[in-house]
Amino acid sequence: MMDFATRIHNHNYRLDPIIRSLLDTDFYKFLMHQFIWMLYPRVPVTFGLINRTKEVRLAAIIPEEALRAQLDHCRSLRFRENELIWLAGNRFYGRRDIFRPEYIDYLRSFRLPDYQLETIDGQYVLTFAGAWTEVTMWEIYALAIISELRTRAAMASLDKFELDILYAQTKTKIWGKIKRLHEWPQLRLAEFGTRRRHSFLWQEWVTDVMASELGPAFVGTSNAHLAFKHSYEAIGTNSHELPMVAACLADSDEALKSAQYDVLAKWQEVYDGELLIILPDTFGMTQFLRDAPDWTSRWTGMRLDSKEPVAAGEEVIAWYKARGQDPLRKRCMFSDGLEVDSMIELHKKFRGRIRESFGWGTMATNDFRGCHPRGLNTLDPISLVCKVTHANGRAAVKLSDNPAKTTGSPPEIARYTRIFGQDGFRHADVVV
Amino acid sequence: MMDFATRIHNHNYRLDPIIRSLLDTDFYKFLMHQFIWMLYPRVPVTFGLINRTKEVRLAAIIPEEALRAQLDHCRSLRFRENELIWLAGNRFYGRRDIFRPEYIDYLRSFRLPDYQLETIDGQYVLTFAGAWTEVTMWEIYALAIISELRTRAAMASLDKFELDILYAQTKTKIWGKIKRLHEWPQLRLAEFGTRRRHSFLWQEWVTDVMASELGPAFVGTSNAHLAFKHSYEAIGTNSHELPMVAACLADSDEALKSAQYDVLAKWQEVYDGELLIILPDTFGMTQFLRDAPDWTSRWTGMRLDSKEPVAAGEEVIAWYKARGQDPLRKRCMFSDGLEVDSMIELHKKFRGRIRESFGWGTMATNDFRGCHPRGLNTLDPISLVCKVTHANGRAAVKLSDNPAKTTGSPPEIARYTRIFGQDGFRHADVVV
Repeated sequence: MMDFATRIHNHNYRLDPIIRSLLDTDFYKFLMHQFIWMLYPRVPVTFGLINRTKEVRLAAIIPEEALRAQLDHCRSLRFRENELIWLAGNRFYGRRDIFRPEYIDYLRSFRLPDYQLETIDGQYVLTFAGAWTEVTMWEIYALAIISELRTRAAMASLDKFELDILYAQTKTKIWGKIKRLHEWPQLRLAEFGTRRRHSFLWQEWVTDVMASELGPAFVGTSNAHLAFKHSYEAIGTNSHELPMVAACLADSDEALKSAQYDVLAKWQEVYDGELLIILPDTFGMTQFLRDAPDWTSRWTGMRLDSKEPVAAGEEVIAWYKARGQDPLRKRCMFSDGLEVDSMIELHKKFRGRIRESFGWGTMATNDFRGCHPRGLNTLDPISLVCKVTHANGRAAVKLSDNPAKTTGSPPEIARYTRIFGQDGFRHADVVV
Repeated sequence: MMDFATRIHNHNYRLDPIIRSLLDTDFYKFLMHQFIWMLYPRVPVTFGLINRTKEVRLAAIIPEEALRAQLDHCRSLRFRENELIWLAGNRFYGRRDIFRPEYIDYLRSFRLPDYQLETIDGQYVLTFAGAWTEVTMWEIYALAIISELRTRAAMASLDKFELDILYAQTKTKIWGKIKRLHEWPQLRLAEFGTRRRHSFLWQEWVTDVMASELGPAFVGTSNAHLAFKHSYEAIGTNSHELPMVAACLADSDEALKSAQYDVLAKWQEVYDGELLIILPDTFGMTQFLRDAPDWTSRWTGMRLDSKEPVAAGEEVIAWYKARGQDPLRKRCMFSDGLEVDSMIELHKKFRGRIRESFGWGTMATNDFRGCHPRGLNTLDPISLVCKVTHANGRAAVKLSDNPAKTTGSPPEIARYTRIFGQDGFRHADVVV
């Protein structure tokens, strides 16, 4: 039976939106958003897109008109009532009422602020400036839009069979990975790949297969829309932007040094329980742990995102022991460019020593390497981030334990380096 | 847009027919059918299904009711006028008017005769008895029905994602094979996999991908329906049933020995040009060539279907030279359980020495080995044939160069072996 409407729509439509729901973002954005909305509503910030894979000239690949159409469409979106009811009524990490009714009311009228787009040297310079409460939400939408527009551009030249083979080969590849993970039923992992996904539909397919095949080892997804739609656990707490902006609010070197702890002290006033996850590497993990107030050791655990993971895990375990804490009661989530081999290696290394778990990102939702039917690399993932670049009139800095992930202006990076030092820093290539 | 009719039909239907067109058979059946209809219309024959993979107990896998429903549906089919116009009007092997108008008229009222079905020791005993002109057409339909019913039974327990992964892995596997063939653009091959295909839709997909990717190296398909539907060349000439029945018509040992040549003499009265392909192995290739009348060396070429192919090819080249024929003007088609490696090996061995080509069958249209998402072998191909078992009141015999492919009653096999000898026979395991 010919479904005329679908056939015509598939070949003649106004726009194929990439972001179709404001829930289609990382869950941690909502926790941070409420936190910002409560405590820092009027801090002026700028976020900017950074393509660390410079040889991929995004402006030569993605038509500017298409990018603007997707960003504009995203700005037209509003939270739907069923989505707000889910945020308000769902349990997250076993707790009800994480989101205040006033915050939900605020979301009801939320819309994304405007963006600035220009092209320099073949790269899009995409920036978002305004109040932190508004600008922060652009991060994941912008990344997912750029990522999927690049996917679409690469696929536009493939014919029917090539598309079929592309997905057959990629499904075969991810299935091989999931089958390997299946051999380690105690290896707990979440899907963390929204920001650099191949496409929404592919992320959804991968996440559904993980849920179906891995059973309880699949603990959930960072994507709030997928969690809502499929009743998965929403996973995630906070990110580097909190200490980065907090540091920009500091008026002295001493205040700058303690900002990384002060923002966490405020976080624990707002949240508790499983939401108390430290991301220690914004200005270097070693200095963070060495100088951390003792109350931080009573938090739920940590997420390790840049230091070589075996060394980072050992450092965390030693630190908990030194602070009189039992590592076996602490969560240790790895989330830096993970792949099946590294997850299994870390699982074997740390199981029974700390409550290790994994946030599997780009290599889950965008590993098309070797799958292009003509052998091209146009669908390989790239290292794309959207970071706060300025806050409170100052350039924002992230040092990271891997200098390849450092962001900020050179003079500010120099100042931060003087204050925080570089203990334990080590360069490593960044793939995604 | 919900297409209600399709959704409901997909989950609530009377029958999903496997054979939907009487053209959905090997093209050689039509050439043989016309030949039989002209010269042997009333020879009584019996065809029977033979499952050489005895450990697969088909009657325990395929419900008898489903098998009867498909066979009955097949009997209800008639040639459609557009199909008859194609048979009458198309060029085959560059020639028009291969099929006589009277034969086309005969096809217009053709219907398949009845079948006999019983179950013995877990295997279906499926036989077709009657006039050769009617019974012969059952061969491919019956094989394709059994093959696809087995496929359906194996897939019925797979869930949505497992089905998705099954086809993703199999597409990846066949794509790897086609990519390897792509490296040998002079390697000419046809798709020959109707009889043991996974399913009609899979055969069609594989054939379409081969046509799309291999370009002129893909010379066509044995399947008349696919040739008609997609405007591919229809490939094939004749099979073992001609000398097998001819042998049953012989009334003396001398007549039996010469029947293999006499039937070809009649064939060349009916057909000429590229249709003069010898299948020399029915009673052993070495005796066939040794004792063959000289006019057989002037035919277009040979199809090699059971002897170890390198030895067979060398034997054919030497024979043509001994008969004063230039092998480079002779076709040599290999068709016995071919796989990519063996085709490339034979291509490298024989290119520039004879006009070698390949009929790629089951390993093109039903190689699901290693692709089952739970690692089962229920979708692996089996060795299923439908052969003439009796003709003219006698047991029919095929000796073959590989005794594993011998069919017939033991006393008759003994008689044939006495008459034809066993020169060059060598046992090899039969996979498909």
